[in-house]
Amino acid sequence: MEKSKQRAQILIEALPYIQKYDGAVVVVKYGGAAMTDDDLKASVMRDIVLLSQVGMHVVLVHGGGPEISSMLKALGKESVFVDGLRYTDAETVDVVSMVLAGKVNKGLVSLIHKNGGRAVGLSGADGAMLRVKKTDAADLGFVGEIVSVDTAPIRMALGEGFIPIIATVGVDDDGQVYNVNADTAAAEIAAALEADKFMMLTDVRGVLRDRNDEGSLITEIGVTEIPQLAAAGIISGGMIPKIESCVKAIGSGLKEAVIIDGRLEHSILLELFSDMGIGTLIHA
Amino acid sequence: MEKSKQRAQILIEALPYIQKYDGAVVVVKYGGAAMTDDDLKASVMRDIVLLSQVGMHVVLVHGGGPEISSMLKALGKESVFVDGLRYTDAETVDVVSMVLAGKVNKGLVSLIHKNGGRAVGLSGADGAMLRVKKTDAADLGFVGEIVSVDTAPIRMALGEGFIPIIATVGVDDDGQVYNVNADTAAAEIAAALEADKFMMLTDVRGVLRDRNDEGSLITEIGVTEIPQLAAAGIISGGMIPKIESCVKAIGSGLKEAVIIDGRLEHSILLELFSDMGIGTLIHA
Amino acid sequence: MEKSKQRAQILIEALPYIQKYDGAVVVVKYGGAAMTDDDLKASVMRDIVLLSQVGMHVVLVHGGGPEISSMLKALGKESVFVDGLRYTDAETVDVVSMVLAGKVNKGLVSLIHKNGGRAVGLSGADGAMLRVKKTDAADLGFVGEIVSVDTAPIRMALGEGFIPIIATVGVDDDGQVYNVNADTAAAEIAAALEADKFMMLTDVRGVLRDRNDEGSLITEIGVTEIPQLAAAGIISGGMIPKIESCVKAIGSGLKEAVIIDGRLEHSILLELFSDMGIGTLIHA
Amino acid sequence: MEKSKQRAQILIEALPYIQKYDGAVVVVKYGGAAMTDDDLKASVMRDIVLLSQVGMHVVLVHGGGPEISSMLKALGKESVFVDGLRYTDAETVDVVSMVLAGKVNKGLVSLIHKNGGRAVGLSGADGAMLRVKKTDAADLGFVGEIVSVDTAPIRMALGEGFIPIIATVGVDDDGQVYNVNADTAAAEIAAALEADKFMMLTDVRGVLRDRNDEGSLITEIGVTEIPQLAAAGIISGGMIPKIESCVKAIGSGLKEAVIIDGRLEHSILLELFSDMGIGTLIHA
Amino acid sequence: MEKSKQRAQILIEALPYIQKYDGAVVVVKYGGAAMTDDDLKASVMRDIVLLSQVGMHVVLVHGGGPEISSMLKALGKESVFVDGLRYTDAETVDVVSMVLAGKVNKGLVSLIHKNGGRAVGLSGADGAMLRVKKTDAADLGFVGEIVSVDTAPIRMALGEGFIPIIATVGVDDDGQVYNVNADTAAAEIAAALEADKFMMLTDVRGVLRDRNDEGSLITEIGVTEIPQLAAAGIISGGMIPKIESCVKAIGSGLKEAVIIDGRLEHSILLELFSDMGIGTLIHA
Amino acid sequence: MEKSKQRAQILIEALPYIQKYDGAVVVVKYGGAAMTDDDLKASVMRDIVLLSQVGMHVVLVHGGGPEISSMLKALGKESVFVDGLRYTDAETVDVVSMVLAGKVNKGLVSLIHKNGGRAVGLSGADGAMLRVKKTDAADLGFVGEIVSVDTAPIRMALGEGFIPIIATVGVDDDGQVYNVNADTAAAEIAAALEADKFMMLTDVRGVLRDRNDEGSLITEIGVTEIPQLAAAGIISGGMIPKIESCVKAIGSGLKEAVIIDGRLEHSILLELFSDMGIGTLIHA
Repeated sequence: MEKSKQRAQILIEALPYIQKYDGAVVVVKYGGAAMTDDDLKASVMRDIVLLSQVGMHVVLVHGGGPEISSMLKALGKESVFVDGLRYTDAETVDVVSMVLAGKVNKGLVSLIHKNGGRAVGLSGADGAMLRVKKTDAADLGFVGEIVSVDTAPIRMALGEGFIPIIATVGVDDDGQVYNVNADTAAAEIAAALEADKFMMLTDVRGVLRDRNDEGSLITEIGVTEIPQLAAAGIISGGMIPKIESCVKAIGSGLKEAVIIDGRLEHSILLELFSDMGIGTLIHA
Repeated sequence: MEKSKQRAQILIEALPYIQKYDGAVVVVKYGGAAMTDDDLKASVMRDIVLLSQVGMHVVLVHGGGPEISSMLKALGKESVFVDGLRYTDAETVDVVSMVLAGKVNKGLVSLIHKNGGRAVGLSGADGAMLRVKKTDAADLGFVGEIVSVDTAPIRMALGEGFIPIIATVGVDDDGQVYNVNADTAAAEIAAALEADKFMMLTDVRGVLRDRNDEGSLITEIGVTEIPQLAAAGIISGGMIPKIESCVKAIGSGLKEAVIIDGRLEHSILLELFSDMGIGTLIHA
Repeated sequence: MEKSKQRAQILIEALPYIQKYDGAVVVVKYGGAAMTDDDLKASVMRDIVLLSQVGMHVVLVHGGGPEISSMLKALGKESVFVDGLRYTDAETVDVVSMVLAGKVNKGLVSLIHKNGGRAVGLSGADGAMLRVKKTDAADLGFVGEIVSVDTAPIRMALGEGFIPIIATVGVDDDGQVYNVNADTAAAEIAAALEADKFMMLTDVRGVLRDRNDEGSLITEIGVTEIPQLAAAGIISGGMIPKIESCVKAIGSGLKEAVIIDGRLEHSILLELFSDMGIGTLIHA
Repeated sequence: MEKSKQRAQILIEALPYIQKYDGAVVVVKYGGAAMTDDDLKASVMRDIVLLSQVGMHVVLVHGGGPEISSMLKALGKESVFVDGLRYTDAETVDVVSMVLAGKVNKGLVSLIHKNGGRAVGLSGADGAMLRVKKTDAADLGFVGEIVSVDTAPIRMALGEGFIPIIATVGVDDDGQVYNVNADTAAAEIAAALEADKFMMLTDVRGVLRDRNDEGSLITEIGVTEIPQLAAAGIISGGMIPKIESCVKAIGSGLKEAVIIDGRLEHSILLELFSDMGIGTLIHA
Repeated sequence: MEKSKQRAQILIEALPYIQKYDGAVVVVKYGGAAMTDDDLKASVMRDIVLLSQVGMHVVLVHGGGPEISSMLKALGKESVFVDGLRYTDAETVDVVSMVLAGKVNKGLVSLIHKNGGRAVGLSGADGAMLRVKKTDAADLGFVGEIVSVDTAPIRMALGEGFIPIIATVGVDDDGQVYNVNADTAAAEIAAALEADKFMMLTDVRGVLRDRNDEGSLITEIGVTEIPQLAAAGIISGGMIPKIESCVKAIGSGLKEAVIIDGRLEHSILLELFSDMGIGTLIHA
Repeated sequence: MEKSKQRAQILIEALPYIQKYDGAVVVVKYGGAAMTDDDLKASVMRDIVLLSQVGMHVVLVHGGGPEISSMLKALGKESVFVDGLRYTDAETVDVVSMVLAGKVNKGLVSLIHKNGGRAVGLSGADGAMLRVKKTDAADLGFVGEIVSVDTAPIRMALGEGFIPIIATVGVDDDGQVYNVNADTAAAEIAAALEADKFMMLTDVRGVLRDRNDEGSLITEIGVTEIPQLAAAGIISGGMIPKIESCVKAIGSGLKEAVIIDGRLEHSILLELFSDMGIGTLIHA
């Protein structure tokens, strides 16, 4: 009984947060530890089902680098990286599509169902949702840059009450499948949907003023402050492309983006259901 | 942070209960201490807003005996009761309508809005929702028996996302307003809506095997067991008409009814969001 | 048979007027003698049902000063007026809400049903339709100025074929109920609905050039002519706030307003179903 | 002013009749004097517009024998009748279609618009609405018996707020146009629409007990009484096929049929807007 | 089997053309040899049914000069032409309406049904679709100029899956029927519908640079080149008003118009289902 | 030009077949040579796009045995077959899901887009469309029998104009993915959709009376004749489970099934667009 009373009390405390996001479109870029640790994975899926149940339109976007690498390895194929980006030959892009759209994606869909939700898995090829062209920057093989996002399949799924789970591969006009950066794809999808909130699950606390001190988290960054923070080395390494994706999406109509620590259980709920949030918010 | 984590944890525990009632039509008969105590009143309204937010279609039905008596007293009019039922002359029925539909009802509507919900108040006169005829039983003046329930105004409100709050007066074919028993009206409305759940807030723990021992709560009663429990004096006094209302409504299509203790804070949530429930369930 | 022939002839003569207002939103501010005289009241309700039946979307807005005063008196409470406006303490505002939303409103709803129409009664609290703030002008207690009108509940009722009947109380953000001026509220509702026609039932013929000569009715006044008519004392006394309400509503998008004599039987029909109309038309 | 008051009074008297037929599907078989006399014709069209305006779904079905004969005569072609039915060779059926669908029909459509209504003209060929086969009975050339009625084009027009005006020609499966009996066609259309009321405009008062005494009108006939009335010679001559059409339609789902005197101005209104009606009602 | 294989092959070749016009609104002005030759007529109707089946919204607009002349002759009435335009007295306009809306139109509707399609015939009088005023230019009697096009009846038919077939007569505000130029009417209808394609079936190959050489077809003309081509005598005679109709319609929002040779079997398909088209395209 | 004329002629000949299947739900089980030969694969996809374009609701269901075997081989894993069925351990079922849902499925989706169509790829896990339980028959590991088909995701895709392409894996209540027989899955999907036509692409001509004579094709088999044909050895080998799937689906509401030769180019069109069809039709 005491447990039930506490539960009731907490639900009522959560009500204002639930109301705040009623009907909101929330895009979650899912990756990192939250995806490789089975307990965290199950926990994130339950969180997603909860958000969907209490009135949000959640869209889950995922990559799956480690599983791709491990499948390539099983196939006796070496992962080659050029400037931190995977070199993707024809055989590799097949593996990427298989692993992301056929294994990771369907596994997440099944987990949602196991937790009482309803989901459909889609990839950038479905409805030609993610149109890409070959990356100009470097010769990375079948690595694509997003040219346009057609949100029709996503809106269709949301409209029927399904949680859309999206594997980030793209297609060009000839139907050739490409590998695309999952952070970028997620941000572009969020922008195309004019999402109310875009959350990027990472393996860090957020942007830290002092990288050795988790207590030095910067809770909010305006887009204009970013060059300065980059110059000061506060935004550096793997954080740079993540933040660039957010900035670009904000430029295309996204309201705000937040980088949160996927290593924490219920990180998504902690971000949405508290006044402070737990990560670093990027805003216009 | 710890508080937030606990909140997240509890929300996730509540998820299966929320899912269980997703899209369910839940009719609440509101009255007793939960209506006279201001803190309990505010708490019930928040609970209702929460249920509506997480996907239930909640309909609140209320009477308001104490407020009627107090208004009659202020007007220098004595409340006359015949066999426990209020004798209702023309002047009294005006007061009943005024107090229920004009004061109690609008007060509840405002409380819902104050808590971030959206409500419209209706009475049995609106859309001639509660059609009544003069009670045959005894001469009680303008006391009506329900002849039919037109759920159109209720469904209209639910369809637009409003919580319908219903004051239990009825009208006859000439538009004359009548006083009706709120428990009966609520049960009939629940039956007409083919509600998934009907909850009656009372000032007792439920049906007790031993009325002096709150621990002797009977958690579940089949309709066929009732005569025997009545004969044994276990169902007695004011509980008799309440249970008769439930039985009649179950006969007209209601799935189940539950009598809960409105004196407990969050009694509605405790009933819905636990495996056991907290009251006495009446089922077919 | 002759009677039937005449009826047929008259119906055909009425056709062009019916066609003129097909689908029109017509807001009627109901008050004065048309509301206190039982025969006139029944007659107005039949007129409203007719208009609704032949294709108009009628919205009835009412106050109820005399009934409020009489209830206050019955409660042994004196009505206090400051500059012609009722001083409204906490107890009084409760009485206002009760009488308007619980008695007058439900009585009108029932009369509509008795005449074969379908109505739902709403107050400014329902759906927080009339948002108000405390009047700045003078200390009148819980007397509110309208801040915004949310027409959602009205449109919902019209959309389902109900005649919305609106009691003019307002609510602030905390859910506190306020007394509001019924003329102003009706005009603001008409403006918010972008009504095609706004009719104000009064106890005078309209604006008279010579107040002692009913034949001196001014049939049409442009908004720009009003200051001059006021300066000349032709618009004076109780007519001033009524006309100010109309002017304000025309400024917010209302097409036209007309002040008609509610003491005449079928005044609404006389205004709509003749070339000349019977009152004073205010236009931009 | 007196005129306006009388108009208002009469409109209110008409209200119960208008309410009675609110939303009703009313099929009118139009013909006889009401169609050949220009004043009557204009009057019927105004009546139809009125009915449509006050909430009925009116469907007008017409033939046009006299105009066909006159066109045939102008073309130097003799009208040949076999047992009172027009012998219809290929050339004649062309004329029938032309006159009915091209002249009479479009003339009626234009009259409706002139009176402020909205109409579309259709023939039995449109949407293959009236499927026929060659009459077996006698060799009458292209005279068809109705095999089925497809109400889709009629419902489409009603759904868009148009009054459907239907010229009674039929088509067989090869697209060949046929002449069909207009009374029969109208009755079959009424049955297929499950019309609430079917009115047949004729040039007699109705069924008279004594054919020389218009005062001997039989106001109501049950289907089972008809053989007896026919045996007694009370139903005779041209009335026989009209009544047979009604009986057949009642057998196929029509609620009731009434034979009225189209020579009377406003006969349709007189029938609908009085307690007695003016013609002979045939019911199941 | 070989036949089937060839059919499959051809269907696949046609696919890109079908896709190109998927969902397109295509207005066909039907006339000339394609209308007088029975085999060509049947062929055009089949083509129309095919286009409708594979996803286009086809609207067929027709005149019927030769049939009108022949009916007038049968009625012993001489056709009088003023500057190539038919002088239309009251009797003539009746014949025009009869022949177009009652004979030609219904014949085409029946042919569509015979070929498995679904059509409804409409005239400019239906829904007062083609509003006209008396032509100012010359005294031609009841010859009208189009003032406005109300596409509601056309869109209603398309929306229900019917092919609308439109007889080009117009009506003025008094419901008087007028003769209108079918080319102009078709072009105005195409413009009002914002059609994707407007095809005018004629009895010539198109605009020829050398009128004696069918090989000198001009396949494409920009609106600005027309004055020059007219000055050079390349656009001359009956082609002038046709092209003027197209130019006017392009000025009112039509995308493009093409003049094709209705004497060729399947001319409509040849135009739509080949890269080159077969006629002269007029574009902005 | 001659080519265009022939194309027009052929299209018109195809019209009756197109009309016959207008709006029909057509399920295609895709497999065999039509899937392994790149030219045939491209051809089938074009055929599917054509059918979709001309008005059918096509659903493509596929397996992908050879690609699974080849991936297992690349991973150094032996394919084990028990009684002709693949033994599926945990690792194998992952490969099955990856190859079917991630590679084959997305490749087909892309081919549809390349040919101007619109498709979304789904698997039995999406929306938990194919609910399965572990096969009882033999211990085959994660091989599932279909318990129920939820057509919601398929209807959603059809409703938005997408061609659904379905990879045949199933899920149990715990979200575990299972390998399922593609023929059976396709037949069950067809039955659940109450498809008008179910076509199974195979690598044989159909059911042959004499397996060495392709001319001995049996064009039609009633369900009741099957035991006899099986007893006679005419239905034998791999044909047995295929026909059993069809029979079971017919028992669950499918109208008819046809086994066709996927080795023929345009086999689907040949079946649908000829009177005879090309395969063996199984009917009730």
